[in-house]
Amino acid sequence: MRGILFDLDGVLYDGERPIAGAAETVAWTRREGIPHLFVTNTTSRPRAAIVAKLRKFGIEAAVDAVLSPAMAAATWLARQPRGGVALFTAPALREEFKGLDLVEEDARYVVIGDLGEAWDYRKLNRAFRMLMASPEVRLLALGMTRYWQTESGLSLDVAPFVVALEHASGKRAEVLGKPSREFFLAGASRLGLEPAGVLMVGDDIRADVEGARGAGLRGALVRTGKFREGDLAGDVRPDLVLATVAELPRIWPLPW
Amino acid sequence: MRGILFDLDGVLYDGERPIAGAAETVAWTRREGIPHLFVTNTTSRPRAAIVAKLRKFGIEAAVDAVLSPAMAAATWLARQPRGGVALFTAPALREEFKGLDLVEEDARYVVIGDLGEAWDYRKLNRAFRMLMASPEVRLLALGMTRYWQTESGLSLDVAPFVVALEHASGKRAEVLGKPSREFFLAGASRLGLEPAGVLMVGDDIRADVEGARGAGLRGALVRTGKFREGDLAGDVRPDLVLATVAELPRIWPLPW
Repeated sequence: MRGILFDLDGVLYDGERPIAGAAETVAWTRREGIPHLFVTNTTSRPRAAIVAKLRKFGIEAAVDAVLSPAMAAATWLARQPRGGVALFTAPALREEFKGLDLVEEDARYVVIGDLGEAWDYRKLNRAFRMLMASPEVRLLALGMTRYWQTESGLSLDVAPFVVALEHASGKRAEVLGKPSREFFLAGASRLGLEPAGVLMVGDDIRADVEGARGAGLRGALVRTGKFREGDLAGDVRPDLVLATVAELPRIWPLPW
Repeated sequence: MRGILFDLDGVLYDGERPIAGAAETVAWTRREGIPHLFVTNTTSRPRAAIVAKLRKFGIEAAVDAVLSPAMAAATWLARQPRGGVALFTAPALREEFKGLDLVEEDARYVVIGDLGEAWDYRKLNRAFRMLMASPEVRLLALGMTRYWQTESGLSLDVAPFVVALEHASGKRAEVLGKPSREFFLAGASRLGLEPAGVLMVGDDIRADVEGARGAGLRGALVRTGKFREGDLAGDVRPDLVLATVAELPRIWPLPW
């Protein structure tokens, strides 16, 4: 193993509380010069807000070291044939797409994020019509989170709107965000490493471990965050199981 | 065969033009006392508006003889355990659900129709939260049309919103509308006949013929409306193929 992808919530912190030893583990990777990224499926906040949250927990992270669906999408778009990009994302995310040709109509790439209450029929229909304008128009999804818990109750996230557009247009979305293969490959590529040389550390046996392994990375499961013992009884075998992320420096380097 | 279901657009008329002999065929069923219904997937207009359109073409139809997704849903709901019904449909359709316990919150049945531009995030999320409130809350779809052509361009219909809610809630919608089994069964039940005694006459090899046959009815395909010769080359074999609906009186009674 030469590089590490750290999941955030459940691995480095738990909601608003830090996980013991997490800050020291990240400091260790910096000291040892181990390439690493901070991986999140958040599509409502820009990376700067994520960096600020990590700093609150004593974790130093550069903005460029945060791998978010928006950043992965921008990386993916930069490698595609040129074309207009229509963003259906929180306004705060626009900064992540700087340098691309952002348009409101006639896009070649339609990017769906968590617009929340800003969704209405006209916006969804505008995205749909752009998708139908030509077979080459592509649909991108910033993750496939179904819903999240707000103070007022459950709220629809990005996935329901993506499946609505997939069903209506007959196109399949390119999903940038865990557990998509493209997302983990974007992480390895960003580190300048082969996928096989990268360890993904997460608390979600599906989104983190299975997703990473599916893209050719290794997957470590931590017994913190959303981890449940039953996770180990399923069909996904983590390459490594850690009590917490703080164990990592003690067992590094890994034998593979 | 003892009863008939007539598809409308493409069978009795073509857009704004009547199909020759259609009015005479319907008059023949009335004269002969053959039980029949007029079947449509329209979810934007109440049955009275459909009756008015038929009258324009010289076709007499009672409102109760129109089988629409809304009417099928109301019939279906009347046979279920009692509970609040939340309608996400065009306001004009509310009259079809008279007698049911219509609610805005805490519904046991969530009915999705073509709300069109009235869809916004809050409405979709309200439907979602009701579905998540309890495992027994059911999702109903008034057909599964993906989109339709308006003067301003393609516009999302009911299906994209249904699949969004299915994906978010993990529930499967009960689809009332062609080609769903429940829809055709509601038609036979409405005629007081066994499904095997009912002939569905339509121009859509999938929605009309395959759908009807899947519910145990017989299916006749007409060579009008959206019919294409290629329809007969597929895996669906109509029980009967007619040049137009006007042939029906000449070959009735059918040998089965």
